[in-house]
Amino acid sequence: MAKVGILMGSDSDLPVMKKAADMLEKFGVDYEMTIISAHRMPDIFVNYASGAEERGVEVIIAGAGGAAHLPGMCAALFDLPVIGIPIHTKSLGGVDSLYSIVQMPSGIPVATVAIDGAANAAILAAKILAVSDKELRGRLKEYKKEMKEGVLAKADKLEKLGYEKYIQQM
Amino acid sequence: MAKVGILMGSDSDLPVMKKAADMLEKFGVDYEMTIISAHRMPDIFVNYASGAEERGVEVIIAGAGGAAHLPGMCAALFDLPVIGIPIHTKSLGGVDSLYSIVQMPSGIPVATVAIDGAANAAILAAKILAVSDKELRGRLKEYKKEMKEGVLAKADKLEKLGYEKYIQQM
Amino acid sequence: MAKVGILMGSDSDLPVMKKAADMLEKFGVDYEMTIISAHRMPDIFVNYASGAEERGVEVIIAGAGGAAHLPGMCAALFDLPVIGIPIHTKSLGGVDSLYSIVQMPSGIPVATVAIDGAANAAILAAKILAVSDKELRGRLKEYKKEMKEGVLAKADKLEKLGYEKYIQQM
Amino acid sequence: MAKVGILMGSDSDLPVMKKAADMLEKFGVDYEMTIISAHRMPDIFVNYASGAEERGVEVIIAGAGGAAHLPGMCAALFDLPVIGIPIHTKSLGGVDSLYSIVQMPSGIPVATVAIDGAANAAILAAKILAVSDKELRGRLKEYKKEMKEGVLAKADKLEKLGYEKYIQQM
Amino acid sequence: MAKVGILMGSDSDLPVMKKAADMLEKFGVDYEMTIISAHRMPDIFVNYASGAEERGVEVIIAGAGGAAHLPGMCAALFDLPVIGIPIHTKSLGGVDSLYSIVQMPSGIPVATVAIDGAANAAILAAKILAVSDKELRGRLKEYKKEMKEGVLAKADKLEKLGYEKYIQQM
Amino acid sequence: MAKVGILMGSDSDLPVMKKAADMLEKFGVDYEMTIISAHRMPDIFVNYASGAEERGVEVIIAGAGGAAHLPGMCAALFDLPVIGIPIHTKSLGGVDSLYSIVQMPSGIPVATVAIDGAANAAILAAKILAVSDKELRGRLKEYKKEMKEGVLAKADKLEKLGYEKYIQQM
Amino acid sequence: MAKVGILMGSDSDLPVMKKAADMLEKFGVDYEMTIISAHRMPDIFVNYASGAEERGVEVIIAGAGGAAHLPGMCAALFDLPVIGIPIHTKSLGGVDSLYSIVQMPSGIPVATVAIDGAANAAILAAKILAVSDKELRGRLKEYKKEMKEGVLAKADKLEKLGYEKYIQQM
Amino acid sequence: MAKVGILMGSDSDLPVMKKAADMLEKFGVDYEMTIISAHRMPDIFVNYASGAEERGVEVIIAGAGGAAHLPGMCAALFDLPVIGIPIHTKSLGGVDSLYSIVQMPSGIPVATVAIDGAANAAILAAKILAVSDKELRGRLKEYKKEMKEGVLAKADKLEKLGYEKYIQQM
Repeated sequence: MAKVGILMGSDSDLPVMKKAADMLEKFGVDYEMTIISAHRMPDIFVNYASGAEERGVEVIIAGAGGAAHLPGMCAALFDLPVIGIPIHTKSLGGVDSLYSIVQMPSGIPVATVAIDGAANAAILAAKILAVSDKELRGRLKEYKKEMKEGVLAKADKLEKLGYEKYIQQM
Repeated sequence: MAKVGILMGSDSDLPVMKKAADMLEKFGVDYEMTIISAHRMPDIFVNYASGAEERGVEVIIAGAGGAAHLPGMCAALFDLPVIGIPIHTKSLGGVDSLYSIVQMPSGIPVATVAIDGAANAAILAAKILAVSDKELRGRLKEYKKEMKEGVLAKADKLEKLGYEKYIQQM
Repeated sequence: MAKVGILMGSDSDLPVMKKAADMLEKFGVDYEMTIISAHRMPDIFVNYASGAEERGVEVIIAGAGGAAHLPGMCAALFDLPVIGIPIHTKSLGGVDSLYSIVQMPSGIPVATVAIDGAANAAILAAKILAVSDKELRGRLKEYKKEMKEGVLAKADKLEKLGYEKYIQQM
Repeated sequence: MAKVGILMGSDSDLPVMKKAADMLEKFGVDYEMTIISAHRMPDIFVNYASGAEERGVEVIIAGAGGAAHLPGMCAALFDLPVIGIPIHTKSLGGVDSLYSIVQMPSGIPVATVAIDGAANAAILAAKILAVSDKELRGRLKEYKKEMKEGVLAKADKLEKLGYEKYIQQM
Repeated sequence: MAKVGILMGSDSDLPVMKKAADMLEKFGVDYEMTIISAHRMPDIFVNYASGAEERGVEVIIAGAGGAAHLPGMCAALFDLPVIGIPIHTKSLGGVDSLYSIVQMPSGIPVATVAIDGAANAAILAAKILAVSDKELRGRLKEYKKEMKEGVLAKADKLEKLGYEKYIQQM
Repeated sequence: MAKVGILMGSDSDLPVMKKAADMLEKFGVDYEMTIISAHRMPDIFVNYASGAEERGVEVIIAGAGGAAHLPGMCAALFDLPVIGIPIHTKSLGGVDSLYSIVQMPSGIPVATVAIDGAANAAILAAKILAVSDKELRGRLKEYKKEMKEGVLAKADKLEKLGYEKYIQQM
Repeated sequence: MAKVGILMGSDSDLPVMKKAADMLEKFGVDYEMTIISAHRMPDIFVNYASGAEERGVEVIIAGAGGAAHLPGMCAALFDLPVIGIPIHTKSLGGVDSLYSIVQMPSGIPVATVAIDGAANAAILAAKILAVSDKELRGRLKEYKKEMKEGVLAKADKLEKLGYEKYIQQM
Repeated sequence: MAKVGILMGSDSDLPVMKKAADMLEKFGVDYEMTIISAHRMPDIFVNYASGAEERGVEVIIAGAGGAAHLPGMCAALFDLPVIGIPIHTKSLGGVDSLYSIVQMPSGIPVATVAIDGAANAAILAAKILAVSDKELRGRLKEYKKEMKEGVLAKADKLEKLGYEKYIQQM
């Protein structure tokens, strides 16, 4: 049963949203992923968001670009945490998406992450579930360790190669 | 029977939205005005916006600030024109409202006016209704003439008084 | 007889403005389309915009970039609705175009759509004409249904293929 | 035992952060609240953030303005959810705070809410805790109902008084 | 006979535009000043701008705020230099005015000065006229000397009083 | 003898600045063009700008990007008109250049044109010189006519070909 | 003999710049402070900045607003560190000042601090001098300790009073 | 023994940061360069920054992008000058990095240079060290001379070739 619902308004967002799915798979968190538009199919959207809690969804991750209403409308209908991912846009770089998601009115928060920050949305979802899931907490700590080791390995490589060679190998 | 529906998400928007009502009264256009929140009462909102066409509403004017979803969600549910008014906000000056309203995805347009441009929203609604209402068209032309005469009167006054005295009398 | 006039200040805007023409053709709305510059041929422009109503034009769609005066000057001369399309610009991404179009003074509204939002401008024009044209209203509802089915088909495809394969096929 | 830690870098943020405390009190969620600076007392800060999980803190809410590092540094040290509140600033309106909080690198998410959105930060914290706390979930649903009734009451009042009188009474 | 025409679209711009008139008086440059709106009285405006050259006007100074079309439309109709003053706006601080004035398309330049920079617009007009007016050039050099002496006097005062006392006397 | 001095701080600006030289050649206006840096060779720069008037230069056109001080420092040293061209920058699109040039303090105006607007800078220089040069005024009017005919030719072509074919031929 | 030169272009910047002087006094660093304008008195300015090193000045702190050239022009003439303070501006909040100061071309750095960050400019100057002044380094460490204790005292007060009473006493 | 520490949070910043190392080599200033993340390895980072002074580091240069905490956290832990380089970002162009670095709270300055301004960061570090190092001061003056000669050579080349040929050879 999916604990996290990953939503996007258009399949053009999929290459970004994929990183959320990848990360949840890494953490072994069950999720469902679909394309759903608050604007183009409001009835189906309302059913989805209103019924998600009952179906066992505990966190919704929604990505959207431009006048990005999907995360905020989820937050109006779903009583558990909603994480919003502002998608990069050609003309405004995603500032439009960011403002449309983060500047929610009092009473209806959306947990907003960075522009195109789908991996972070999934990590945040995992941190939320980890509040009551000790095993997942362990996997998060493991992941943190991996990140640290990854940077250390790069620092070692830079030490050994010098920056000229390091850049050549990039 | 109301031809124009004026909506706002919060009564704090009323001092701005009032200018839309004043202008419609001036043009003799029937309207209804209410406070309705797409976030705080999504079911009532969906009913309102889905049922407006059948009730005879021909244009919706919606004002909202911040992550301003009200106009866009109206446009998703109502098949006739929706005019969006971005409301000024303290921190971002209304740029957040503007982007959230104007940057709608393909298929779901919102006719956006200036930040706090409620009077213009009403004039635009009247221009829309005037496409099929010759009498209203006449009233719009009359209003245009008044505006012109208003500026001419000020130009005359400036000519007569000189700018020093004009400013003292402001 | 053209009910919608599509204007642009430069032929470099044509690849964007084309989407407005395509959409009006889809809805079976008669339109005329021309290149006209408020700056480079003000006399011809004034004649066009002042005479449009008499020629039967009911909505003007005007696209412009940078210090985008074309839509606003149309709105000063034409007494029916003017829809403005801010064109993307290299240096400012179209924020310059957006501000020059949307921030009109009281009395002279321009119905502004998203940056490069030419398809939405045409849909908005159709919604405006549909206020007094029941048949067009039907075509708009049909289009809305198509959009919904389009998203549903993508959601089904994602469900069936999984996101890895879906992205490969993009 | 405090489940939520409310942090701010300076007591000048207290009038905003107060709204987070008020909201948590309303939901009956235990919290602790302190002034702590990642810049001015990094050792104490590191101790606080590293030790919070063990002390039973399940969510950290951190508000900061300008180059707002407090929420992001918490997220680097604390393995459960961190909610960031960008505080309004005089010169940049809080855009500086917003970018410094929301644009976190991959691996270290901060759940960002609106500028000065302290009440929403608390509601988000409650939604996070409600994933595993059915009673709290009930209180959140109750709060949602209250919000809806609040708007309905205002809509009724507007209906009865008309907008002129409503504004006079504001 | 006026050599400089000072235009503004609304009398609300007069307290800013006054500084242009004051400065031209100081330089002994003849000017005319009026309120004229490209949007609200396009015919009168076209007459004014098209006829200015023949009446002897050599430079036009035009101030406007928001979607500020006045300077650019002047530049389309008047073949001598047009100086544009972006007027400060409440929501966007005048960035809207600035972009609408400075981002003119190729062929139709507007000499743009700072937001609310009416004094500088007049000095620029004087510098333009001084190209062919040696006496005016002398007055500009005199003004430059005054400015320098003004700063030197303040530097002396600061030297003598110290900054504490200087601030008390401000 | 050069009447217009074209300056740029770096040869990377040359592909933009070239358009100013091309346009002055078209108008038959004598100019000189050089690379000069207010930052990297302040003494040579001061000599150039202070001596330009005596050498017969009547207008300076200066292009610069980023913290673009060249036009403003010219305006401090040269008593006739200085035109500033903000050069497009990779990270900020030229907004940095624009603000550094247009926001000059009272007393020291720079006539700012659009980002990368070198052709317009030259036309503005020609308009300035045309105040006292009737022949040049004639050439400017001729150029205006050409621009108009250019747009008309495009409008005709669009009329004849239709937009599909027009775009194919672009 | 002054080791730090504090410069500002206008006495309106004095209330901000005062904080730099106060902080240097606290650290016992000799400074000189004057009003000097790169635009209004370029010759005096060039003499000041070119001669500062010889007079023993080791760091220059320059504050300026709008098209803020003062710090950058200092950096072109003075071979030791220049610290720039972007001054808050009414219309653009100081973003204009910030970009004009920080976006310097390669070769001529300005060490930029926050908008209105005069106290930080002085601390940075002290840190620079402390590289070769052990005693000053000690005073900086002492100041850091004071800051920490200041925050701790506030945290204690909040602990004791609770936030309601703390706010009342603000 | 390294006098300058060059830090970056990710090896993706290396192609920019390389310019700092190149410049320090040119000036003969000893440096160390490493990849270190305040977010992903806070304990190692705290050790590095707290111990740097004792190891003889006199200036830290830190580059970071997005919510760029690295320079500011260095400044909290290291008592000598910290220079911050805002790294260009895809969506916001580096404005996020700039605000996160420059808008530091009172007491903890970061000497901020231009977006991607790594060469300038190194020159600034050299200027700081040159306060107490006369030989390095000489090398800086030499470099300044080279820059001047470089521009003069380009000006000569432009003079000789004319701009058409110069551009062809670029």
